[in-house]
Amino acid sequence: MMLDKQILRIPGPTPIPPRVEHALGQPMIGHRNPQMGELHARLKPKLAKIFGTKKDVMILSSSGTGAMETAAVNLCKSGDEVIVVVTGAFGERFADICDAHGLTTYRLEMNWGTACTPEKLKAFLREHPSVKAVFMTYCETSTSVLNPIKELTDTVRSESDALVAVDGVSCIAGVEANMDDWGVDIYVTGSQKAFMLPPGLAFVAASERAREAFKKNDHSRFYFDLNKYAEKIENNSTPFTPPVSLLFGLDEALNMMMEEGLENVFKRHRLMSNMTRSAIEALGIPLLTENKYASPTVTAVKPEQVDAEKVRKILIQDFKIYVAGGPKHLKGKIFRIGHMGYCSPADVFEYIAALEVAFKKAGANIELGAGTKAAQEIFLNA
Amino acid sequence: MMLDKQILRIPGPTPIPPRVEHALGQPMIGHRNPQMGELHARLKPKLAKIFGTKKDVMILSSSGTGAMETAAVNLCKSGDEVIVVVTGAFGERFADICDAHGLTTYRLEMNWGTACTPEKLKAFLREHPSVKAVFMTYCETSTSVLNPIKELTDTVRSESDALVAVDGVSCIAGVEANMDDWGVDIYVTGSQKAFMLPPGLAFVAASERAREAFKKNDHSRFYFDLNKYAEKIENNSTPFTPPVSLLFGLDEALNMMMEEGLENVFKRHRLMSNMTRSAIEALGIPLLTENKYASPTVTAVKPEQVDAEKVRKILIQDFKIYVAGGPKHLKGKIFRIGHMGYCSPADVFEYIAALEVAFKKAGANIELGAGTKAAQEIFLNA
Repeated sequence: MMLDKQILRIPGPTPIPPRVEHALGQPMIGHRNPQMGELHARLKPKLAKIFGTKKDVMILSSSGTGAMETAAVNLCKSGDEVIVVVTGAFGERFADICDAHGLTTYRLEMNWGTACTPEKLKAFLREHPSVKAVFMTYCETSTSVLNPIKELTDTVRSESDALVAVDGVSCIAGVEANMDDWGVDIYVTGSQKAFMLPPGLAFVAASERAREAFKKNDHSRFYFDLNKYAEKIENNSTPFTPPVSLLFGLDEALNMMMEEGLENVFKRHRLMSNMTRSAIEALGIPLLTENKYASPTVTAVKPEQVDAEKVRKILIQDFKIYVAGGPKHLKGKIFRIGHMGYCSPADVFEYIAALEVAFKKAGANIELGAGTKAAQEIFLNA
Repeated sequence: MMLDKQILRIPGPTPIPPRVEHALGQPMIGHRNPQMGELHARLKPKLAKIFGTKKDVMILSSSGTGAMETAAVNLCKSGDEVIVVVTGAFGERFADICDAHGLTTYRLEMNWGTACTPEKLKAFLREHPSVKAVFMTYCETSTSVLNPIKELTDTVRSESDALVAVDGVSCIAGVEANMDDWGVDIYVTGSQKAFMLPPGLAFVAASERAREAFKKNDHSRFYFDLNKYAEKIENNSTPFTPPVSLLFGLDEALNMMMEEGLENVFKRHRLMSNMTRSAIEALGIPLLTENKYASPTVTAVKPEQVDAEKVRKILIQDFKIYVAGGPKHLKGKIFRIGHMGYCSPADVFEYIAALEVAFKKAGANIELGAGTKAAQEIFLNA
């Protein structure tokens, strides 16, 4: 047997900092107590910074998928035409949600591993001029692609009045959201990724245009009705019982990010991505995505000389390092390393050196230490 | 600012596993409750395995130094002649304790960085034939030397009736203690090293010969009187209030070691030492001690091209990795890496790659990745 020391490098859930763990463990309070109002008042300005918005960010007790459905059922109703940009499994999920609610869903399908470009979206918008909303994924967790949300939002704005809804689950708090500046209408995300929290909280940030759409929308919904959340959060409350412990944890996780400085948080994520990608490239192992599409929060590796699942298993057996396999048709072909939230450049060194050992044991013709050296050089030149 | 993620690689206190942290946080119980007796009954067989003894290990609420003093005042009284093997700062401490209690203390001084050999001890014993006890250090934390306790104990046995007292603070639970087999009379250690616990508990294991000596000894003592502890632990209790939370944590830390298997725990520590030493050697950086004296739990590095303190500061500034400086006359000349307790080969990769960066930034002429490669090769060939 081995020392029971798990190193979680899947793209979520991610490791929880001890400060956050301790915050999670605080004694329970009543969710209608004045203390809860004070907690919300502390959370609001910090969350607003993360999302880059002046408006109150709404907090739901749900997974990220729940938040995606919330976006769809508040912006649109059955019969509405919508575009969903599908760059991977989570783009597909957005489309499946739209289908489930009877929207007329036009899928703009991209090859898995590439991002959507403004040009492609522009052409597609011209084919479908009367769409009510465009749904897109910021970081496509399944492929480690980061879609260019600013440019895609500009494209929508220049072509139509459609609302822009963005799934930011596996990147927000690790990358810029710039909601107000970019003109995104709704961002949704979960707590278990760059927020350094357990799963269970979802965040929804919405523009004034989006809020007007919610009010007019008569699509059937109750728990996910954002009008309720928008009204309550103004008074530092939630319409339904919130996961109190997770809110305690959120307060501390946001404190940690504010102490580090958001700019530094974003720089760190970009640095970890660059270190990881340079290391893998230096070993002669292919990556799934090109550098220009690379997410700062997750990296998909596509080994050709050796079986991806074999490498993944050696990482677990020898080091208790957990990376994620490939989803759907990429199963067995890629593995994905999460480097977001409570993860530092030193952690990158750890998994890169362990990966070199795993590649070697799996039979890949690689030079031990070469990936580490490449990551070190990126760190030194940052 | 940086992410608040501290990586503690000093030779104690060492990181606490989450399982142990959670155990530490259990609700307080009365120290005379039946639950406490049940806890002691669970601890005893596991502690006995760690020390390699059939007798009950005694638990004190004190630091390691308190346990060292306990050994001295229970085995000896003022005026008794004793030998103290001094291989570094903690050997000096044992001698200072003996002096403080009016023992006639003969110091067998070794160069810091080398271990005591059976030959040297034999010669010294012949010069001092009427000593009551020989005090020695298992792992000399200040230099990372592991003294050959089995051989030194054999030497004492073959030359005299002196009792053998061993400070095992910075290694027991990471290396073999084999108390009964080796004929050690008293082992003392603290909780904050290979035991994966916070400071505050001290363990004392004693042979039958030692116990007879305690009984006959009239040296003044109260809190540190082992006769009291020996009597109480037979009935699953302690003479004075124990640090209850630390005992909860101890139970879980011992569970983790039993799950891993003690043989595997010891192998892991030896492997981490070998990986660390090979890496530093591959970088062309000198180590303070020769391989034959190397402790599995701590490694002292003695850089010559660059300032040891500069390297240490870069590790903190760039990675929040904390290693220890040099003690006394080694201050500024060495730094010491703790690799014991909750530390794995993946952690070794982490600090080695970070160290390479720090050496480079400090101006050393080293090849990035070369140390990592050497550590990887040791891991692959283990």
